[in-house]
Amino acid sequence: MKRTRIGFLGCGNIGCGVYRLLQRQGKRIEENEGVSFEIARILVRSKTKARGVEIPERLFTTEPQDVLDDERIDVVMEFMGGEEPAASYILRALRNGKTVVTANKMALATHWDEMIAAARESGAGLYYEASVCGAIPIIRAIGDSLQANRITSVMGIINGTTNYILSRMSREGASYEEVLSDAQRLGLAEPDPTADVEGYDAAYKLSILSTLSFHRHVPVECVYREGITNVTPLDVRLGREMGLTLKLLAVAKEEEGRVQARVHPTFVPDTHPLASVNGAFNAVYVDGDACDEMMFYGRGAGDMPTASALVSDLIKAARAERHALPAVGAVPCEMADDWICEHFVRMQVSDEPGVLAVLAGTFARHGVSIASMVQKGESGTQGRAQLIFLTHKASERAVRSALAEMDGSTVSQVSVIRVEGR
Amino acid sequence: MKRTRIGFLGCGNIGCGVYRLLQRQGKRIEENEGVSFEIARILVRSKTKARGVEIPERLFTTEPQDVLDDERIDVVMEFMGGEEPAASYILRALRNGKTVVTANKMALATHWDEMIAAARESGAGLYYEASVCGAIPIIRAIGDSLQANRITSVMGIINGTTNYILSRMSREGASYEEVLSDAQRLGLAEPDPTADVEGYDAAYKLSILSTLSFHRHVPVECVYREGITNVTPLDVRLGREMGLTLKLLAVAKEEEGRVQARVHPTFVPDTHPLASVNGAFNAVYVDGDACDEMMFYGRGAGDMPTASALVSDLIKAARAERHALPAVGAVPCEMADDWICEHFVRMQVSDEPGVLAVLAGTFARHGVSIASMVQKGESGTQGRAQLIFLTHKASERAVRSALAEMDGSTVSQVSVIRVEGR
Repeated sequence: MKRTRIGFLGCGNIGCGVYRLLQRQGKRIEENEGVSFEIARILVRSKTKARGVEIPERLFTTEPQDVLDDERIDVVMEFMGGEEPAASYILRALRNGKTVVTANKMALATHWDEMIAAARESGAGLYYEASVCGAIPIIRAIGDSLQANRITSVMGIINGTTNYILSRMSREGASYEEVLSDAQRLGLAEPDPTADVEGYDAAYKLSILSTLSFHRHVPVECVYREGITNVTPLDVRLGREMGLTLKLLAVAKEEEGRVQARVHPTFVPDTHPLASVNGAFNAVYVDGDACDEMMFYGRGAGDMPTASALVSDLIKAARAERHALPAVGAVPCEMADDWICEHFVRMQVSDEPGVLAVLAGTFARHGVSIASMVQKGESGTQGRAQLIFLTHKASERAVRSALAEMDGSTVSQVSVIRVEGR
Repeated sequence: MKRTRIGFLGCGNIGCGVYRLLQRQGKRIEENEGVSFEIARILVRSKTKARGVEIPERLFTTEPQDVLDDERIDVVMEFMGGEEPAASYILRALRNGKTVVTANKMALATHWDEMIAAARESGAGLYYEASVCGAIPIIRAIGDSLQANRITSVMGIINGTTNYILSRMSREGASYEEVLSDAQRLGLAEPDPTADVEGYDAAYKLSILSTLSFHRHVPVECVYREGITNVTPLDVRLGREMGLTLKLLAVAKEEEGRVQARVHPTFVPDTHPLASVNGAFNAVYVDGDACDEMMFYGRGAGDMPTASALVSDLIKAARAERHALPAVGAVPCEMADDWICEHFVRMQVSDEPGVLAVLAGTFARHGVSIASMVQKGESGTQGRAQLIFLTHKASERAVRSALAEMDGSTVSQVSVIRVEGR
């Protein structure tokens, strides 16, 4: 039986999860898959830190080269997180001909070209199922199951922290700040929540997903990004009343040869399968020209779900006679600088005759057609009313330019939330 | 570039779908996957039948050996459906060393051991992603992504026809017969609907799914099977009032080394992701010890979704250096002859004092604990009432023996529907 020697980079929660899973299922994996594993070396900062799992101390090292340059190590598993030094270590391992299994979306998304090139050159494998949506095998689905499709769109709830926050805001009518501080207390949000709530984490993942879906590199800098920090309970509630659920959606589409990749608060109809993905769950909705609509749902994070994906990559790597790299063309991806979707537009306006006519006229002049409009009287704000417009599909640029033209004395406050999935 | 020569067995809707997909995406697949395909021979009954896609007549043959025994053919794709002659043809192709790609759950489930043995002996590949749930890559998910898990349960809506019928019964309160005849008129149910409505189709698929999940062969004869023909609008409605949605569920669990595999009408809580899988969509819910809960959702049938899965298998087969066969132990699977779940029990009883006490006492004597009970007065049935019991988790055998002991003059009508997913 083929025996694969593994080096770990890092041994936090996820690394310990992998260690535990290999201990628990190693024998079963040997029997079923015909491969066996030996954890040969573990790079850590501290050899004596308590880890909640018994690991022989002789495996630990604080010297990166003991993992990266040791010829006896076949596969390097990276769980350090963050861009550096993880990215440099991954590149060094690949250049040394070692196959890398990683859950690090940030390192991968920011050094994609370099890593693919390094793997191609040395013949090493690069596996990253765990980098997007934990246990959900979305990387495999796109690469190994939907290859016969032209994928037209990928929409996902791919960040658990923001989904937890929005699910609770939606259910309880609570404010963003309240729920965030709860989430921090429960360990569901980081003390500095920026990476999650501003959509950076989702943008890394979307860069990877869209690159694989459209076979052209979609750099993370090209992903449009808008976080959830400005989401108000009022918009969440008004959306609910119109049958819409608010999610931080990562959306990638290819239209007429141009790719749009964007992360932003998005309304989806309550009846859409993504609407009922709550709490810490993730889901990715894929549309292809042959397969039609599909959804992949599961735990997007957590030690053991992530370890499940990492070990499946490890098995795949160990069984491979030749490592496949993703088919991504060398031609740079042409990004769309505008896109068409429905919009939820809420405005606070002066409550006087003729205002609606003027606003509707402005939308019309910019080619934005209105599907429905609701006026809400507002208690406590004399002479002001809330108007909520739902547009038909319209160019985002047209919506923005219509809004820019509206008179600031008439319109005092505006929320624009994109609507997808209808 | 590796060129794979393909022979088709059959060329109905799905065969034509594959033909069309290869024409449409062949070039793209060559570029991305590095494999190319040539459709070399197509076995048909009639060479002149109109097929809605232009296929050169020289490809057609009415002689099975032109596909099965031609040395120049590498891969046989089977779309004939039904057990025979499909199963014999598949076996003959495998014995001739040809890799087989099939969507035929019936042939596969009824000749599993033989087919795996034939493939193992000749070194040919056997691929069947399309046999379960059309485009949904559930076979790959179990075999290539969740290998590090001990899968504890698989629950699926894996038959589109019955899901369409139950979705409409649930939405409209219509009767089974009404919706069935509509479905037949729309081509969503066969003129003879037995295979779908009696759960045979789902049982074939569940045999395959559970065999792969538990690594032991679960023969289709061991799948407990109960169709939807006795489902009443009353039960559907009463369930809805209790927050339960009725589905034909295929359920497989492994508990204490014993496997239970069963297809039957099942209530799931409205909040369960499976509850919102409607119409012709399929979904499979998997629970594993590391990955936790996951769901795979998509089109379970249709020419192009099925073709999407078939071509992905074709690509996988063409790229394989060595064909992997599923890891299934030789030890026969020990099947459970009883199982524990919650039950919805509706009874029509004489509406007189003391009846509830007697019935509750009978349940208690058999160890069946009641979670809730609702009494519904029944218009037009003098002196009768409906009692609906929801049990706590209880052995099915215990529930049945309690019911058997109840006095026929008191209890005149009983529905028992299992509840899963809470």
